[in-house]
Amino acid sequence: MLEPIVWNRNTLLMIDQRKLPHKREYYACKTLEDVCYAIKNMVVRGAPAIGVAAAFGFVLGIRENLEVDHISGKLISTRPTAVNLSWAVCRMKEFYRLGLDVEQKALEIYNNDIAINKKIGENGSEVILDNFNILTHCNAGALATAGYGTAVGVIRAAFERGKNIHVYVDETRPFLQGARLTAFELNELGIKNTLICDNMAGYLMKSKKIDLIVVGADRIARNGDVANKIGTYSLAVLAKYHKVPFYVAAPFSTFDPDTECGNDIAIEERSDTEIKEIGGVKIACENQKCYNPAFDVTPSELVTGIITEKGIFKASKLYKFYNKLGGKDGC
Amino acid sequence: MLEPIVWNRNTLLMIDQRKLPHKREYYACKTLEDVCYAIKNMVVRGAPAIGVAAAFGFVLGIRENLEVDHISGKLISTRPTAVNLSWAVCRMKEFYRLGLDVEQKALEIYNNDIAINKKIGENGSEVILDNFNILTHCNAGALATAGYGTAVGVIRAAFERGKNIHVYVDETRPFLQGARLTAFELNELGIKNTLICDNMAGYLMKSKKIDLIVVGADRIARNGDVANKIGTYSLAVLAKYHKVPFYVAAPFSTFDPDTECGNDIAIEERSDTEIKEIGGVKIACENQKCYNPAFDVTPSELVTGIITEKGIFKASKLYKFYNKLGGKDGC
Repeated sequence: MLEPIVWNRNTLLMIDQRKLPHKREYYACKTLEDVCYAIKNMVVRGAPAIGVAAAFGFVLGIRENLEVDHISGKLISTRPTAVNLSWAVCRMKEFYRLGLDVEQKALEIYNNDIAINKKIGENGSEVILDNFNILTHCNAGALATAGYGTAVGVIRAAFERGKNIHVYVDETRPFLQGARLTAFELNELGIKNTLICDNMAGYLMKSKKIDLIVVGADRIARNGDVANKIGTYSLAVLAKYHKVPFYVAAPFSTFDPDTECGNDIAIEERSDTEIKEIGGVKIACENQKCYNPAFDVTPSELVTGIITEKGIFKASKLYKFYNKLGGKDGC
Repeated sequence: MLEPIVWNRNTLLMIDQRKLPHKREYYACKTLEDVCYAIKNMVVRGAPAIGVAAAFGFVLGIRENLEVDHISGKLISTRPTAVNLSWAVCRMKEFYRLGLDVEQKALEIYNNDIAINKKIGENGSEVILDNFNILTHCNAGALATAGYGTAVGVIRAAFERGKNIHVYVDETRPFLQGARLTAFELNELGIKNTLICDNMAGYLMKSKKIDLIVVGADRIARNGDVANKIGTYSLAVLAKYHKVPFYVAAPFSTFDPDTECGNDIAIEERSDTEIKEIGGVKIACENQKCYNPAFDVTPSELVTGIITEKGIFKASKLYKFYNKLGGKDGC
């Protein structure tokens, strides 16, 4: 079993996702600074995973006797789009102020994340029918979480329930999370899968080769708009056009009632190098100008349903249920 | 000026497009076999360019005293989707049977291709308005033709006419013709451009950053359906959704009245390695299963217009004009 994040008393060990699938190496963080570096440089990525990593980063910062607001600021500034990061930091800050054991609380966030993912998988497995061909984008698997996965969690829960399924994996340029991480995870789990380039998805839908799409999320706004890995929006439009169900799988910690709609979500722009170089190999002219938005926003009306640990909801109704269910814990 | 194809009495020299943009090297073909290898392995690619290369391959085959049907069969079997290849071979066969000088005829095909491209550019430049942001996919530039280009020809013709334009270039996985060839050509021409990953195009359209899309074509069926590089279809659907004009630029030699509709066009599937490796660097598990269709088909109703050397036509009306204008020459 893949253990992407391991807490070892005073060290946070995380599988270095930049080196997968070729090398399975743990990256050791002993300081707040180490954790910030790891998040910023995508040693660890995936909204729930960076939330969990940040919780342990908070613990390390406290042990370094750093000031709480400094710790929080450092962690939150690493990446702007995923809300799980600020959610986890905000919770940790509150726990600290209440005088609770922050290490124990970080471990709770970690364990809860796995339990929540399993529940998301259980809820989502119902929409996956036998013999389905499923398309997924980016990596919303064990590696994007404390373990198990959200979108991949839904897929593996269906697989564990004996359904015969096959997954098309978008390679997900520029960082290739699909090719390097999702396909790797599915191979490890023994789930049949085929890697495609992102631009092939429309043709597959037209050829009736896709029965359902499921992706993760980095932030869900109050109106149900979903920020997720760049390319998600295109898939959602294509799904609408081809009448393919388009699901988002995410824990409630990804829901951000303070962000009114998708337009208010900060979209991180990353370096040109991610586009111009692949594994150190240059694929364009030296001074080539690039544009590298890391995320996009899918309007709620293009989302068939949001699969959460508390059930499957219409995106536009999520806020209503969020209030009804008492919001998120502790923040 | 970029001279992608040079005929040197008994040698066909072609810029080795596999090595661009880093190395500008000519690949020398002295035999029919050399030309077939170059087409199959993408030393040269692009529908008009492989038509021209095949014409010279035919000349080399004749000089080797090979049998005419053998030469034709060899050339036509190199790649199945682009119709310009069989069109050029078919013309050369006819010229040969009429006892004409095949070298001179191949040079005519070469020169005509450049002249036709310039006419396509002239016709197409009218749809490009000042301050337009244009999106293009794959490479339909000088490198895809004997020179000048079709879709890029339209862009450069607008630029040469003094229009202030900017081009977004889809990198075009898996072979990266956009990143390696189109961006390179635009840089050489001094046309402002920005490289993006294929999955970013939808987000750009949503953000109103694209005024017009223009792509090339590998084969246009009688009903106006267009086969072109994989990813074109997704762009056309996204363009429709966002009300962005979607043009195809192609010479009449790309039109195939013998193919009734897009479903009848053979879609080439290429090797998994093109997806799993980039410039020799592995980006997925060793035994990863992939699916690599090299082209897709865009239905005529998604195409705003087809820009040809004889004017701009609605895709569904192309057949009518084709007959009215007397079909293609010589085949």
